[in-house]
Amino acid sequence: MTEHSLWRLSRALHRAINERQLEEFEALIDEEVDWAIHGPIEMFPFLGARRGKAAVLEVVRRIAETVRIHRFDRESIMLGLDQAASMLRYSLTGLDSNKPIHLRLAHFAQFKDGRLRRFRVLVDALELAEQALGRPIHLPKIAW
Amino acid sequence: MTEHSLWRLSRALHRAINERQLEEFEALIDEEVDWAIHGPIEMFPFLGARRGKAAVLEVVRRIAETVRIHRFDRESIMLGLDQAASMLRYSLTGLDSNKPIHLRLAHFAQFKDGRLRRFRVLVDALELAEQALGRPIHLPKIAW
Repeated sequence: MTEHSLWRLSRALHRAINERQLEEFEALIDEEVDWAIHGPIEMFPFLGARRGKAAVLEVVRRIAETVRIHRFDRESIMLGLDQAASMLRYSLTGLDSNKPIHLRLAHFAQFKDGRLRRFRVLVDALELAEQALGRPIHLPKIAW
Repeated sequence: MTEHSLWRLSRALHRAINERQLEEFEALIDEEVDWAIHGPIEMFPFLGARRGKAAVLEVVRRIAETVRIHRFDRESIMLGLDQAASMLRYSLTGLDSNKPIHLRLAHFAQFKDGRLRRFRVLVDALELAEQALGRPIHLPKIAW
């Protein structure tokens, strides 16, 4: 039984971010990859939609310049033949501030021949924004 | 081939919210359901963790009092034997304000004997908060 593509991708991505070694990650990305991270793009310009390996490598380089992964817990997971989805809770460190950052995200990944073909990520952006601002965002208790 | 539990649950949940008919939904929920919606809980007290069918029915009643579902698009999906995960984009209407609300969420569902046993949802809370406040939350372009 071969290892699921998700585990290889996950290790390679974390290595790319923490050690700035992108070779393994690069080998696991389809040339025509369809990629989007839904998050506060005005705060982090490397979020958003990208198409193609070169654009995705640039995103990962920018993430690697911004944070280090301290730990992560996979809270939910589904593995399929050429697909995987999970919800993760990350503890990161901001490289400039040396501050801890906690965030939750969900991702959906589709693979083709073992390479990442489509990737969708949803980041809990409010939490991220509050930590970036260094203060809670006041939210009224409202009825719509 | 029987219908996946997700489709039954999805129809019943949407009917519970839009028509305040909870019977079908109630029949699809395990007594010991483990439920959490990660989102801006200070704004919407019905978000957060719940345990057991009664608590979950109360959450859905509160959602039904707050919004109506106008439409939704399932952007990503995975179906397993007793599991399902998807990412959805919702167009809602706030019942008090009659204002449109757009939000993206990801969910992971586990079923037992066709009933929902574990449910995890991540809501794009920043987007939700901005629409609730009626203005964008200013996010500095920062480096961490």
